Amino acid sequence: MDSYLIQVNGNTTLPSLLDVHVNLNGKAPSLGKSKGRKPHWAVRASDMSKRTFNPIRAIVDSMKVEPHPEKPLISLSLGDPTVFGNLPTDDEVIQAMKEALDSRRYNGYAPSVGYLSGREVVAKYYSCPEAPLEAQDVILTSGCSQAIELALAVLANPGQNILVPRPGFSLYKTLAQSMGIEVKFYNLLPEKSWEIDLKQLESLVDDKTACLVVNNPSNPCGSVFSKSHLQKILAVASRQCIPILADEIYAEMVFEDCKSESLAKLSKNVPILSCGGLAKRWLVPGWRMGWILIHDRREIFGKEIRDGLLRLSQRILGPCTVVQGALKAILHRTSPEFYHNTLSFLKSNAALCYDALSGVCGLRPVRPSGAMYLMVGIEMESFPEFENDVEFTERLIAEQSVFCLPATCFEYPNFFRVVLTVPEEMMVEACQRIQQFCERHYQGSEGAPDLECDK
Amino acid sequence: MDSYLIQVNGNTTLPSLLDVHVNLNGKAPSLGKSKGRKPHWAVRASDMSKRTFNPIRAIVDSMKVEPHPEKPLISLSLGDPTVFGNLPTDDEVIQAMKEALDSRRYNGYAPSVGYLSGREVVAKYYSCPEAPLEAQDVILTSGCSQAIELALAVLANPGQNILVPRPGFSLYKTLAQSMGIEVKFYNLLPEKSWEIDLKQLESLVDDKTACLVVNNPSNPCGSVFSKSHLQKILAVASRQCIPILADEIYAEMVFEDCKSESLAKLSKNVPILSCGGLAKRWLVPGWRMGWILIHDRREIFGKEIRDGLLRLSQRILGPCTVVQGALKAILHRTSPEFYHNTLSFLKSNAALCYDALSGVCGLRPVRPSGAMYLMVGIEMESFPEFENDVEFTERLIAEQSVFCLPATCFEYPNFFRVVLTVPEEMMVEACQRIQQFCERHYQGSEGAPDLECDK
Repeated sequence: MDSYLIQVNGNTTLPSLLDVHVNLNGKAPSLGKSKGRKPHWAVRASDMSKRTFNPIRAIVDSMKVEPHPEKPLISLSLGDPTVFGNLPTDDEVIQAMKEALDSRRYNGYAPSVGYLSGREVVAKYYSCPEAPLEAQDVILTSGCSQAIELALAVLANPGQNILVPRPGFSLYKTLAQSMGIEVKFYNLLPEKSWEIDLKQLESLVDDKTACLVVNNPSNPCGSVFSKSHLQKILAVASRQCIPILADEIYAEMVFEDCKSESLAKLSKNVPILSCGGLAKRWLVPGWRMGWILIHDRREIFGKEIRDGLLRLSQRILGPCTVVQGALKAILHRTSPEFYHNTLSFLKSNAALCYDALSGVCGLRPVRPSGAMYLMVGIEMESFPEFENDVEFTERLIAEQSVFCLPATCFEYPNFFRVVLTVPEEMMVEACQRIQQFCERHYQGSEGAPDLECDK
Repeated sequence: MDSYLIQVNGNTTLPSLLDVHVNLNGKAPSLGKSKGRKPHWAVRASDMSKRTFNPIRAIVDSMKVEPHPEKPLISLSLGDPTVFGNLPTDDEVIQAMKEALDSRRYNGYAPSVGYLSGREVVAKYYSCPEAPLEAQDVILTSGCSQAIELALAVLANPGQNILVPRPGFSLYKTLAQSMGIEVKFYNLLPEKSWEIDLKQLESLVDDKTACLVVNNPSNPCGSVFSKSHLQKILAVASRQCIPILADEIYAEMVFEDCKSESLAKLSKNVPILSCGGLAKRWLVPGWRMGWILIHDRREIFGKEIRDGLLRLSQRILGPCTVVQGALKAILHRTSPEFYHNTLSFLKSNAALCYDALSGVCGLRPVRPSGAMYLMVGIEMESFPEFENDVEFTERLIAEQSVFCLPATCFEYPNFFRVVLTVPEEMMVEACQRIQQFCERHYQGSEGAPDLECDK
């Protein structure tokens, strides 16, 4: 009995009155855990938590570097259009939220898949004759991240694999690995405006492939697939009978005036879970309003996947009801000028950045056509001082106080990503500093320092 | 090659120009999936989605019953205090949200664990000398459900088990099963105001026990543990070296004027993840604003569990930033009268319902002392017409249009749960109808119909 009492409160003080009372209260309880051994504290984090790995955080946190003390930091790293205050959301969006609050109607629980009215609104907004949607085809989620999480969780079992773009948004891998799902990377080709290497994609498919993740327009590439390329992607999925998880959070964020195509509109048979939300187009990423659109022309998902999504949605419920209540007004009343202005700004900043960096020796920017990013190739052989893109961007912070994400964060070394949402003057200044940095470190093809490049 | 072409678009039409192009473009790609067999569509929902089971939904959906056409439905089933409009949130809460919106400062991404300012506010609000909290001890989550999900996900691996109250909130089991974690039920004793059967609890502990879930005040019981009972629970956890997941979403919702005790305040060594949120006390469950308070007096969780929670929080991010931005004003400006009025109302409704049902033959209500529920035992032997609580409540709907959840939903047959948030006149009417229903079906101990009971 002594050793038992000594364990009280996990230290070696005498038992309190309370503990004595418990022990006196009857026989010693049957102690499963202490059978044959003394309990001791050993609380370990779960395997799942250890498998949950955010490469951006890991890489950025490992960059032990301070910005140059005499230059104000220009951060081109965060995919959040709201940081600089130059891209506020539309006043109608704020107004819609206030009306939802004033109505006092959106404080209670919504169904786990979202209010029917909100689902209807989203369905109507995205419905088109080629890919009709009804309320039952929409699940409202806590941001596009939860939409992707639910879609992966319903489609894939541990041990299966998903096909994911490289370079690509790191969340797919983070989520898949946390769930024990294998990730296979298909290549995007910078020389083809980041189109998919379709042959290599198709070669990855095996019996354990649960879905193909297509992100269009793309983070980090800023690319927008043509209609014909989307059709080719669908042809692969159709041949291989692989459903598609379409990450379309940047839908309609394309610089040309033509509407960007959705995969679902072009699909005749491939079942698609299209994930989207308010985050980027309406410039409110923190509000966590996302959705899944279920496109299932041939009933291949059928009741099974719909039921699965419903069940999974009940684990933690969906988005804030105030935002759900405001959805209709947000989608209907946001002015066309608002979308237009955002895109004009992004397009102009993209051109500015592309033109500036195109003239820099050792850099190879890839012209974007949508979303809010631009990828820049680094001719690493021209910068022999730096081992890789991580070191390149690290030194860029230290010397020029310009922070770009190394594309190793997106499984694509020797590139870096520029976020295009910063104010124009900051974009100009950042490009100048990047140029200065490259001029200082560029060593040409012969390895001779300060060699003129042919740009 | 034919069969390959025929598979294009999943039907037998001729290949389009596009597909021919792909095929002509080089050798046929290496098709992992089609090696040795023809791909076919077979999209199955994941095992996890099938394991995700909400017993309330399953039981309620299986109740194929219509309310009595001549009596308006009174639903005492949903734990949502906002449904009847009689318990609006405080005006200051709405005002705080509008101010957060107007500031335009809360539209971007927050850190995955929440804004530092919001974490600080919650930490200060719940900090006390016995259980001090700082911002780093707080993680903001998408409702208390995500708080519980993260806490379970970080503490338990598949194959481990957690100890869960019976009767208890069904979400613990739903989440655990979806993650492959076993659930072991410990008993609450109605005759002891739903205190835990501590011996039976302790007998359940084994080498695979990852945590003890304690819900206080309780859903569905409406019980509030005394300080001394909480100390006894802590003594068990301490002896067995089991961390506690404290579901304290109903914290401070107690009918007496004394403050309800938190487990953390009384713990000297047991590490505790306390889950809470705005939902119930501030009457805005739809807003999905929850939190985890990490209490780790002896650094038993240590860096490992904190890191694990941080990693897991990055999977889908946390609550809506507008609510995060409003948190400080919500916690500081909500008037004491608001809390007082809510509790007075609940206390009065509880007394009304308890008194009314105490006089009904065949029912044994258990007096609640907090939260917003009351559990009623059914002497099933006195109602031989009904097989169980599910049939009892089903017939109550059909005959009296009163909808209470059968406690089978909470793993506790032969009870039903009454939600106490309905307007008083509705509560009165519901109790009268329940009485009528019981009088009609009560058959006494001898099995004789309409036998007078001794109440």
